[in-house]
Amino acid sequence: MADFVNTKMYELGTKKSTIRTIFEFGRKRASEVGEENIYDFSLGNPNVPAPDFIKNAIIDTVNEMDPVALHGYTIAPGDPVARDTIAGSLNKRFGTHFAGKNLFMTAGAAAAITITFKALAEEGDSFIAFAPYFPEYKCFVESVGARLDVVPARCEDFQIDFDSFEKIISKSTKAVIVNSPNNPSGVIYSEETINTLTDMLREKEKEYGHPIFLISDEPYREIAYDGIKVPYLTKYYDNTIVCYSYSKSFSLPGERIGYIVVPDEAADFEKVYGAIAGAGRVLTHVNAPSLFQRVVARCADFPSDISTYEKNGKLLYNGLIEAGFTCVKPQGAFYLFPRALEEDDAKFCEQAKQFDLLLVPGKDFGCPGYFRAAYCIKTETIERSLPIFKKLAALY
Amino acid sequence: MADFVNTKMYELGTKKSTIRTIFEFGRKRASEVGEENIYDFSLGNPNVPAPDFIKNAIIDTVNEMDPVALHGYTIAPGDPVARDTIAGSLNKRFGTHFAGKNLFMTAGAAAAITITFKALAEEGDSFIAFAPYFPEYKCFVESVGARLDVVPARCEDFQIDFDSFEKIISKSTKAVIVNSPNNPSGVIYSEETINTLTDMLREKEKEYGHPIFLISDEPYREIAYDGIKVPYLTKYYDNTIVCYSYSKSFSLPGERIGYIVVPDEAADFEKVYGAIAGAGRVLTHVNAPSLFQRVVARCADFPSDISTYEKNGKLLYNGLIEAGFTCVKPQGAFYLFPRALEEDDAKFCEQAKQFDLLLVPGKDFGCPGYFRAAYCIKTETIERSLPIFKKLAALY
Repeated sequence: MADFVNTKMYELGTKKSTIRTIFEFGRKRASEVGEENIYDFSLGNPNVPAPDFIKNAIIDTVNEMDPVALHGYTIAPGDPVARDTIAGSLNKRFGTHFAGKNLFMTAGAAAAITITFKALAEEGDSFIAFAPYFPEYKCFVESVGARLDVVPARCEDFQIDFDSFEKIISKSTKAVIVNSPNNPSGVIYSEETINTLTDMLREKEKEYGHPIFLISDEPYREIAYDGIKVPYLTKYYDNTIVCYSYSKSFSLPGERIGYIVVPDEAADFEKVYGAIAGAGRVLTHVNAPSLFQRVVARCADFPSDISTYEKNGKLLYNGLIEAGFTCVKPQGAFYLFPRALEEDDAKFCEQAKQFDLLLVPGKDFGCPGYFRAAYCIKTETIERSLPIFKKLAALY
Repeated sequence: MADFVNTKMYELGTKKSTIRTIFEFGRKRASEVGEENIYDFSLGNPNVPAPDFIKNAIIDTVNEMDPVALHGYTIAPGDPVARDTIAGSLNKRFGTHFAGKNLFMTAGAAAAITITFKALAEEGDSFIAFAPYFPEYKCFVESVGARLDVVPARCEDFQIDFDSFEKIISKSTKAVIVNSPNNPSGVIYSEETINTLTDMLREKEKEYGHPIFLISDEPYREIAYDGIKVPYLTKYYDNTIVCYSYSKSFSLPGERIGYIVVPDEAADFEKVYGAIAGAGRVLTHVNAPSLFQRVVARCADFPSDISTYEKNGKLLYNGLIEAGFTCVKPQGAFYLFPRALEEDDAKFCEQAKQFDLLLVPGKDFGCPGYFRAAYCIKTETIERSLPIFKKLAALY
């Protein structure tokens, strides 16, 4: 017996993430100098309240439904009626042709991707992510015994660097993960990017003689500005698995509700869906929270209110450009990912901290030299932060 | 690449459990011969509706709380106020002295025990369960790379067979799992059983020179009849980890809400709690559903209504005894575990199926020769089933 607890789990549970450390520093400073003097861009926690239709749906559902049916176990993949309703809504909006049986309800997108990794990974497999990427991917992929390979960022526009991708993809690649609209860059993969990527994947599938899955981690799907369309990937590539969450679109991150889509076109649908059911079982992620399965199904056709994020994104972007920063224009999600004003992004973020500007170093997202600013905060805080960004820039 | 999905996950996701197969047979038969002619004792799904105070707490919480705070992320272990409230309620009811920091909110008891297994297990470790036991233990333990050792049942009263336990416990034993009130036997471990068990564990800890944890899986804690007290195990043994769920006590199985308790007295509290946080992270089980964290905290002091289960349990027990069955008296949970009328319990349950009496063979719970009858069903169905049990018994 190596130790009386699992050493790796202890490390994962006690080593604070950079983001968490910055956030906690902000809370401490707020108590010292006042909330209004802290410009906290560290956390991706929606500040737009859940819409009223969610509250109404909760109240109507508990008033209308028999509590035994409402709060009882659903079948493991989720309530059939809720899944049918959500599938129908996707079909209307994206021209897909899913049925309820293509959906597996999950406790949000993190659960969805972990279940998917566990369902697919065999010993020796690798998964590919494109920098900049959500840092928990590495932890989730390694926890199922696989390896995460990272394709370096294409910094001019944060689309995909296909030359690097070509060098990194290999016979051991089980799946490729995309996250668009992207955390942390705020960029949406263009249809051209998607076409090039899926053409390459099809070629590599032929070359290696096995399926390569495309995992679309898309909690930010609805947060896209200026009418930009986020391509629905099952229409571009058969072996796509979609991982979705209502955390951002309906501002419900705490409720843990989302789903996995396995389209009929996936190589052996029955096999992939079966493995997802098994992974959900061992990860004890069957039967997603039952009230919220019904609530999101009831609201499936309702629009997300992204006006605050759009306003905030443009305000911050214009302010940063005016202050002399270089940054890809905000297209969606609620992040900007500007270039740091010195090579060492961690040092730069430390410098910003002197002004109580809380930013996250890009190297945490596999992309050193940049920083992330999450603008899901009060518009007024962003307004007041702009002169501070100028002061910071004046140091360089 | 062995296969394009993980073979083990595929098997786990597609091989139906015996219970599920029996249940689905019942649904099919109900459509053929009518719901009223099926006596389905297969599923442990509460039939008592969630109490009105739950509905009121849901409506009050969504009306009173700011939606950003209510539906936003809580910290990973759960909302501090909810955890403090629940700890206070436990202290009042059981004379413990927990604080919020001792609790980690989880998506029900299955998540709680899986997180605990993952937090503790190192390569080569074994966990011990006492037959009859919840069959998913094996699947959960093996999924974290450990081994489940099973102590055979003490069939006269379903307390613990300590001679067998003594032979099975070893230096590789990381933890011992108890589940009282028990699924499937309906038995509650007596204080004498607990004292003997914890004395032995303390001795073995000394002998082996490392902690042996006692995992108390107790979703049925509140379902105990005739004033029987269910000992609160942290008071008997320092290295106890409690896994609780509101699924049964408040009839909320679909909502996935429960908690883990790590008492201050546990060997290196900080280490155990840290490993639980890490396991929660990689299993994507941080931040249990946020509305229900608040709802159960609001209702923490409210009693469970167990009158239906108590009535059902006695009705079924008396009917079975009258029909000639041998069975330990119901003490809690909502199961009876009588002896089958032939040696092969699977064959016996097949025979019962001819009468549309749906029972689960004991061998599924590591205890052949018995069967489980879940009586969380309509009292009237039980009444009408009694002559059928007599007819079945008449065959033997």
